[in-house]
Amino acid sequence: MVKESRVDVLIIGAGPSGLMCANALAGAGVDFRIIDNRPIGVPAGQADGIQPRTIEVLQSYGLAEPLLRDGAQMHLCAFYNPGPNGGIERTGRAADVTAPTARYPFKITIAQATIEELFIDSLKSQGVTVDRPIVPSSLEVSQDAEELLDPTSYPVKVVLDHILPSGTTTEQEIVHAKFVLGADGAHSWVRKTLGFSMDGEQTDYIWGVIDFIPDTDFPDIRNRTAIHSSNGSCMIIPREGDKVRFYLQMSDKDVMDPETGRIDKNKVTAENLIDVARKTFYPYTVNEPKEVDWCSIYIIGQRVASRFSKNERVFIAGDACHTHSPKAGQGMNASMNDTHNLAWKLAQVLRGRADISLLKTYELERQKYAQDLIDFDREFSALFSGKPRTSENEEGVTHEEFLRAFQASGGFSSGIGVHYMPSAIVDATHQSSAPEIIIGQRMLPQVFVRAADARPVEIQDMLPADTRFKLLLFVGLLTPEKLVNVRRLAEELQLPTSFLQRYDYAAQGKAQSMFDIISITAGRKDDVNFLDLPPIFRTHWSKVLIDDTDVTGRLGGGAYPRFGIDEKEITLVVVRPDGYVGMIAPSTALGSMDKYFGSFLIGKTLSLGE
Amino acid sequence: MVKESRVDVLIIGAGPSGLMCANALAGAGVDFRIIDNRPIGVPAGQADGIQPRTIEVLQSYGLAEPLLRDGAQMHLCAFYNPGPNGGIERTGRAADVTAPTARYPFKITIAQATIEELFIDSLKSQGVTVDRPIVPSSLEVSQDAEELLDPTSYPVKVVLDHILPSGTTTEQEIVHAKFVLGADGAHSWVRKTLGFSMDGEQTDYIWGVIDFIPDTDFPDIRNRTAIHSSNGSCMIIPREGDKVRFYLQMSDKDVMDPETGRIDKNKVTAENLIDVARKTFYPYTVNEPKEVDWCSIYIIGQRVASRFSKNERVFIAGDACHTHSPKAGQGMNASMNDTHNLAWKLAQVLRGRADISLLKTYELERQKYAQDLIDFDREFSALFSGKPRTSENEEGVTHEEFLRAFQASGGFSSGIGVHYMPSAIVDATHQSSAPEIIIGQRMLPQVFVRAADARPVEIQDMLPADTRFKLLLFVGLLTPEKLVNVRRLAEELQLPTSFLQRYDYAAQGKAQSMFDIISITAGRKDDVNFLDLPPIFRTHWSKVLIDDTDVTGRLGGGAYPRFGIDEKEITLVVVRPDGYVGMIAPSTALGSMDKYFGSFLIGKTLSLGE
Repeated sequence: MVKESRVDVLIIGAGPSGLMCANALAGAGVDFRIIDNRPIGVPAGQADGIQPRTIEVLQSYGLAEPLLRDGAQMHLCAFYNPGPNGGIERTGRAADVTAPTARYPFKITIAQATIEELFIDSLKSQGVTVDRPIVPSSLEVSQDAEELLDPTSYPVKVVLDHILPSGTTTEQEIVHAKFVLGADGAHSWVRKTLGFSMDGEQTDYIWGVIDFIPDTDFPDIRNRTAIHSSNGSCMIIPREGDKVRFYLQMSDKDVMDPETGRIDKNKVTAENLIDVARKTFYPYTVNEPKEVDWCSIYIIGQRVASRFSKNERVFIAGDACHTHSPKAGQGMNASMNDTHNLAWKLAQVLRGRADISLLKTYELERQKYAQDLIDFDREFSALFSGKPRTSENEEGVTHEEFLRAFQASGGFSSGIGVHYMPSAIVDATHQSSAPEIIIGQRMLPQVFVRAADARPVEIQDMLPADTRFKLLLFVGLLTPEKLVNVRRLAEELQLPTSFLQRYDYAAQGKAQSMFDIISITAGRKDDVNFLDLPPIFRTHWSKVLIDDTDVTGRLGGGAYPRFGIDEKEITLVVVRPDGYVGMIAPSTALGSMDKYFGSFLIGKTLSLGE
Repeated sequence: MVKESRVDVLIIGAGPSGLMCANALAGAGVDFRIIDNRPIGVPAGQADGIQPRTIEVLQSYGLAEPLLRDGAQMHLCAFYNPGPNGGIERTGRAADVTAPTARYPFKITIAQATIEELFIDSLKSQGVTVDRPIVPSSLEVSQDAEELLDPTSYPVKVVLDHILPSGTTTEQEIVHAKFVLGADGAHSWVRKTLGFSMDGEQTDYIWGVIDFIPDTDFPDIRNRTAIHSSNGSCMIIPREGDKVRFYLQMSDKDVMDPETGRIDKNKVTAENLIDVARKTFYPYTVNEPKEVDWCSIYIIGQRVASRFSKNERVFIAGDACHTHSPKAGQGMNASMNDTHNLAWKLAQVLRGRADISLLKTYELERQKYAQDLIDFDREFSALFSGKPRTSENEEGVTHEEFLRAFQASGGFSSGIGVHYMPSAIVDATHQSSAPEIIIGQRMLPQVFVRAADARPVEIQDMLPADTRFKLLLFVGLLTPEKLVNVRRLAEELQLPTSFLQRYDYAAQGKAQSMFDIISITAGRKDDVNFLDLPPIFRTHWSKVLIDDTDVTGRLGGGAYPRFGIDEKEITLVVVRPDGYVGMIAPSTALGSMDKYFGSFLIGKTLSLGE
């Protein structure tokens, strides 16, 4: 008898992408399982960079603190180029992050194992563990159109092989799932099974990578540093504690077997990599390291999967759908943000609150992003792998060219500038009501003070990734005339036909709420009385904010002009559960907001008198 | 056979004062025991306020985060006085903390039990538990002068009665201690046994206190609020979650038994207290609370112990040596800061690194503080308990008088302005080298950027309470001429006669170091090369700071002018292990620094060639 079971979501792969999804689904109370084919997680020593936007995202799950405490932070980037005396010299230092609105104006490096442990600990506290080692051996998606459209059906059948402690025998299990996520890495079995191709190219650039504790007189050893030397390029990435990572451009003779023309793995040793570094760093010295953590070699390839989803029932995410150079530190970020985008959509569809078509926006939003990512990576890798401009090589890359490209890509590479195009969940019609809050981008960080107790709060901390839409109600100055309009708006929003009533089942006392309202007044903390607002706009005393500075005058204030919002009007900003701005509307256009939510949410049946 | 044992420090009492001491001694590796007469800690519901300086101190032990996360924060104070219509009305709001240099510009309220758990958890992670229930029954201090002066002797004999699980029988134990701390509360057995008196007075003011979740239309219910009404005064203290505390001035008829003239405990009920609040709050309503945590009554008394120490062998701290009104939120703060002052001194004496006379500075510094505290409390209580100025009562307290007193006392009440007078460990001779870093006060918070990686750091976070003296070396601008002087200073400090060599045993590899050097340059993060400094001034890459802004330009910078330090000079600032500035000197006055440390530290014997 083969064991058979049902599950709402089966996650295949417990790397950053699968774990992010699992953690988000656990928080949403979704029925899911997560399996992995490895008996344990990644070993220590693998690593990656965490970009500013990813820190914001992790913060929205309450997971950023350990990274901020334990990771290395990169604030500056230093640039070195060939000097007149044959060696390298510093051409300048610049901010490592070129994204003025970043809440965290730096990158973090931390071992991938640490990130995975963070999620695994969070899952454990919610009673979830990763099932491992388990290998999927077959996956079938029903092609019955009716079944596929019914969100309560289980149209995906997956056969799983449990690897028994002996390591050689397996036990089969059949799982019927509503949805499956393939987060199973660059060699994704799910992707291959679905028959999706990886489209793109491989370059000729060969790079070595080494993690170690350096002994050097190089003055920028704790900054991210881009070295263009006549011996090849090097990227320094400071790591936790005293460790650093070097990415070193290798020449064919460094790594190739001259007879076969293939990479000779025996040549990839820490000693050989340090030898390459020595030549690249001249006239600075790089002494024999006391401790080497890890070293490896890779050839850059840039590819994106042809599809991210099969019938909105099986999805792929992370390395399974995009591969690129590690040097720009995007890998883990793209992976976690894929499933951050997907998880809330799955949760709302499974709850019966959103139409299954909402899931189409996953591929729409993330495939476009992945394509942009490899375009960026291709350009950046070429510039970085190219020879520097010298008197002998007038075709080479100049510092100015490189710096310009580095800074121009800062919005994208930091993740801050990621911009989702108009769709069912991105409606830019009323952009002019708040021209500086870009619809389709993540909500800008901004400090306000709470009206009730004058405590400064970061608005992003009031936008947790809890599957709810946040309504930021910019009520402006609470003049007597304004209060009349505010009360009228409250009445309109309490009509049974209003989106706030139609799509929020919380009043029934048995379901998670769909909306959280945060009211933001203009005015001074010395005067504002939060009790002036109708109760619907202050569901708790902590939900009313003032656009004013804190008691020191150093934090907060200036949001209305910064966002381009008129203090005399009432403006609603809809922030999606993943922190991206979905729509904006003036209070006079409530109908367009009803229409927005109506296009993907499932309303209560009014005739039943609910 | 009575069990006998020896211990370096015996702490009697596991309230905030005793636990702060225990945690500090555990961190310093000191041999100690902590006992308490209660079978468990304080029940939930007791509470207190945490002042800005105390947050800084807890941060120096790595313990502030939970408070910042879980406590209520008071940023604003609101003031209410009798209005023209018989009820109260708001006369204004003002910053609750009047101390411009406070790193945390607010107060925190959190249950005393939470603070105690914080310490108990920290102790547990270091393998220490509180021995309880144990009652001391006798304490004797040897009067042999030679024994008292020998820091390796055990001149204090304490008999302890272990209360056995039956609760009625006890088992005796004799402990011989080098030092004893009596942190055993307002009715201190240690104080009484030593025969110290409590000097001061009791007032006639009677106050009720109640912790509950309010249901009210009072707009400042989440701010600290001082109400002067014709019905008596009230102080509102917001608490964790939705709770608040009211301190309510009671009239005799509210609480007295008319026949006996004594307080009738039966009258102190939540209902009676809410009734008093209702009259005080008129025209605002205070509805029947759903949940009452705790209520009580007290009469204000202000007293200070005649002595804080017996022969520098037995000390008392916390409520054992000062009692005062709870409304100003000073109790737990004074208590924890007493032992924060004492612990590092005990550790250095026990290690044989400091002369036992160092311990005299405990009473010197903390008794003066306690006297200032009750003077402040007496004045503030009188103003707050006094009738408000109205047309019928022209002698009453005006809002302006109260606000003036409130703000004038902000430096003291926040703990920020605490100023230790000149002594062996406070030498103000060279105050002019950094006129704005006040010798005897705590080191000012200030953000710098790290030279090696441009990460912004708060200088207070580099001053942990780890028993080491921190030397802040303000080297100024690193011009070529300056570097000559810097190298010369490095050489001088490496001479065997220099304090840095004479009093630091760390080079022997077997002892905790006495000093930690932090170098602070002027200049720009784009240019400074931290490797330019001699190795002694950069013992780790993280120990060199620049007085510059971070990459956003929003944090840091301006410290040299702010502190009044000349960028052309080299200035040394000595920060004591408890975060207070002990002395300042220009690099040309190293002799005075040798003398400073020589007055209380014990140097290595140079003749032994160590």
